[in-house]
Amino acid sequence: MGKGRLEAFSDGVIAILITIMVLELRAPHEADASALRPLAPVFLGYLMSFVYLGIYWNNHHHMLHAAREVNGRVLWANLHLLFWLSLVPFTTSWMGEHPLTTAPVALYGFVLLMAGVAYFFLAQALVAHHGADSPIAKAIGSDRKGRISVTLYVVAIAASWWAPWLSLAVYVAVAAMWFVPDRRIERALEGDGTG
Amino acid sequence: MGKGRLEAFSDGVIAILITIMVLELRAPHEADASALRPLAPVFLGYLMSFVYLGIYWNNHHHMLHAAREVNGRVLWANLHLLFWLSLVPFTTSWMGEHPLTTAPVALYGFVLLMAGVAYFFLAQALVAHHGADSPIAKAIGSDRKGRISVTLYVVAIAASWWAPWLSLAVYVAVAAMWFVPDRRIERALEGDGTG
Amino acid sequence: MGKGRLEAFSDGVIAILITIMVLELRAPHEADASALRPLAPVFLGYLMSFVYLGIYWNNHHHMLHAAREVNGRVLWANLHLLFWLSLVPFTTSWMGEHPLTTAPVALYGFVLLMAGVAYFFLAQALVAHHGADSPIAKAIGSDRKGRISVTLYVVAIAASWWAPWLSLAVYVAVAAMWFVPDRRIERALEGDGTG
Amino acid sequence: MGKGRLEAFSDGVIAILITIMVLELRAPHEADASALRPLAPVFLGYLMSFVYLGIYWNNHHHMLHAAREVNGRVLWANLHLLFWLSLVPFTTSWMGEHPLTTAPVALYGFVLLMAGVAYFFLAQALVAHHGADSPIAKAIGSDRKGRISVTLYVVAIAASWWAPWLSLAVYVAVAAMWFVPDRRIERALEGDGTG
Repeated sequence: MGKGRLEAFSDGVIAILITIMVLELRAPHEADASALRPLAPVFLGYLMSFVYLGIYWNNHHHMLHAAREVNGRVLWANLHLLFWLSLVPFTTSWMGEHPLTTAPVALYGFVLLMAGVAYFFLAQALVAHHGADSPIAKAIGSDRKGRISVTLYVVAIAASWWAPWLSLAVYVAVAAMWFVPDRRIERALEGDGTG
Repeated sequence: MGKGRLEAFSDGVIAILITIMVLELRAPHEADASALRPLAPVFLGYLMSFVYLGIYWNNHHHMLHAAREVNGRVLWANLHLLFWLSLVPFTTSWMGEHPLTTAPVALYGFVLLMAGVAYFFLAQALVAHHGADSPIAKAIGSDRKGRISVTLYVVAIAASWWAPWLSLAVYVAVAAMWFVPDRRIERALEGDGTG
Repeated sequence: MGKGRLEAFSDGVIAILITIMVLELRAPHEADASALRPLAPVFLGYLMSFVYLGIYWNNHHHMLHAAREVNGRVLWANLHLLFWLSLVPFTTSWMGEHPLTTAPVALYGFVLLMAGVAYFFLAQALVAHHGADSPIAKAIGSDRKGRISVTLYVVAIAASWWAPWLSLAVYVAVAAMWFVPDRRIERALEGDGTG
Repeated sequence: MGKGRLEAFSDGVIAILITIMVLELRAPHEADASALRPLAPVFLGYLMSFVYLGIYWNNHHHMLHAAREVNGRVLWANLHLLFWLSLVPFTTSWMGEHPLTTAPVALYGFVLLMAGVAYFFLAQALVAHHGADSPIAKAIGSDRKGRISVTLYVVAIAASWWAPWLSLAVYVAVAAMWFVPDRRIERALEGDGTG
C-alpha cells in the first residue's frame, strides 16, 4: 500500500491544527498597543505549540521518507498520533489562560507525553513492517531523543505540582533539543532527564 | 479521469472534519482539574467520531487504492458521502451536550446510517465503472461488514427511544467491529444484528 | 509551470470552505427533535452551497484535467475564482438567517454571479495559454451552461426585489442544471432564462 | 529529500489561513443591505490579506518550482515563514475593527515585514543548499522587489504614528507592485521607497 495518502492526510491534519490554534488569539476590542499585553501568554503558548507541531511534522516527514510502504497497523498508529496532536489546541488554549497553574500545565505535558508515546508506536509499526535490517529501522535507531523527551515530559508533569514554571522550562528545553541539531545539547539534556 | 484529485479532496475534507470537531472542546475558564469533568461526554463523543472518521478514511483509502480511475458518477457519489460525513461534527456536538437523550442519539445514528448508505453507493459506482470482474469488485465483495453496520445503525436508532445508552453501546460495537480486524467479533456481531 | 500545486491549493480551499460552512449549523441547547426545526433554513442553505461548491470542484477538476500547464495569469485567475467562492459561507450564513428577504437573497446570487464570471475568466486564461485549437479549448467550447447560469443569476437577483422565493427557485434550478447531466433540462432552462 | 511534502504542507497552511479569515466576516443580524456597511473595513481588510497571501502562495510556488530538493534548514525556514503568515488573520481582524488607528495598522505592517524577512531567509536557505550557480539562485537573483517591500513596510510602520491612512496606502502599493507585473511601476515604487 502506498504511503502518499498517509502523508497527505497527516500534512492536512497538522496544517489545520497549526492554523486553528491561531483562532484562539482573538483581536482585542481596544485599539492601543497595551491591549496586546494580556495576550502575551496566549501568544507564547501558541508559539510553543507551533514549534512542537512543526517538530512533529518534520520528524514525521523524515520517518515516512525512509518508509517504502504502509499497512493497516501503520495507518491506525498514525491516526493515534494525530488524535493526541489534535488535542494540542485544547491544552494550549487552557494553558494560555492559566499559564502558571498546575492542572493546565500538567495536562499540556500529558498530551505531549501521549503524542511522544504514539510516535514511538508508529515507529515500531513501521519497523515491524519493513524488518529490523531495513533502512527505516536504521534511521529510527534507538530513538534516544524520543526516549529522553518522554522522560522529561514525566518529570515536567510531576514538577507542575510544586513549580509550574519549571514544567514550562522543561517543555521549552525539549523543543530546543529537537530544534537545535546539536549533539552536545542532547547529551546535556540526557544527563538532566535521568538525574 | 485520474483518481488523484478525488483522493486529495477527500483527504482534505476528512482531515478538516476531524480537526474542527476539537473546536467543540472549549477550554474551561477555571484552572483546576475538576473543571474538566463536565467535558467528559464531549470528549468521549469526540473520540468516537474521530474513530468513525478514521475508519471512513481507512476504508476510503483501501477502496480507492483498488480503483484505476473515476468518472462523473463516482465524483458525485464521493461528494454525497462527504456531505453526510460533514454533518458528524454537528451531531457529535449535539450528542456531547445531551449524551443520553433520544433525539441527539438517534440523529447521530441517522447520520452514520446515511454515511454508510452513501459509502455503499460509492462502492456501487466504482464497481459499475470498473466491471464486475475487476479487482475493485473483488476487493469490495459482498461488503458484509457494511451491511451489518447499516443494520446495526437502524437497530440503534430504534433503541434510542427507550434506551439511549444501548444505542451508544451499538455505535461503540460497530466502531470496534471495523477497528478490530477479528473475524470472530464480526460473526458475533452479525448474529447480534440480525437477531 | 506544473498544474499540480494549483490543483492541490484549489482542492484545499474548496475542501475547507465546504467544511467550515457546517460550523454555522450550531447544535441547539435543547435536546428534543423540535429544536432542530429552526435550523431547517440554515440546513437547506448549507445543502445548496455544498452542492454549488461541489459543482465548482467538479468543473474545476474537469477543466484542469484538460490543461497541460499553467502560467501567472492562470494562477491569479484561479485565486480570483477562489476569492468569490470564499464568500459563499458568508452569504450562506446571512441567507440562512433571512431566507426570504431581498438583500441576503440578492447578495447570495451576486456572489454566485461573480464566481461564474471568475470561472469564465479562468477558462479564457487557460484557452489563451494553450491556444484556440488545444484540447482544453475544445473541452470548454462555447461554455453554454456557464453563460446560461450567469444570465439566470442576473434574473434571480432582479427577482429578489419582488419575490425572493423565485430567486431561490432559480438558484436550485441552476444547480440542478449542472448536477443532472441531461441536455433536455439544459435546453428547457435556456428557454426559461432568455424568456 | 523531496520537496513534495513541503509544498503540500505549505499549500495546506496557506489555504486554511485564506479561508479562516472569512470567518471574521460575520453575517449581520439585520436583513437589509445597509447592515453590510459596517462590514466594509473588515471586508476590505480581508481582500487585502487575501491578495497578500495569494502573492505569497504564488511566489512560494515559483521559488519551490526552481528548487530541486530541500534540507532540514529549508524545512524550518519554511515553517518560520508560515508562522508569520499564520498571524495575518489576527492582524487583519484587529485592523478591520480599527482601520485608521496606529497600533493595529503598525502591527499589520510588522507581521508583513517579518513575513518578508522570513521569505528572504527561506530564499537564502534554498540558495545555500543548491549553490550560487544553481537555477534557483538565478531565479531569485538580487530579489529587488523583496527588498523594496521590506523597506516600504518599515516606512509604513513609521508613518502609522502620524498618518495611518498613508500606511494603508503603502500596503496597497506593495501588493500592487507584486500583483501588476510591470517593471515601470516597480521602478517608480523603488524611487518612492528610498526617497
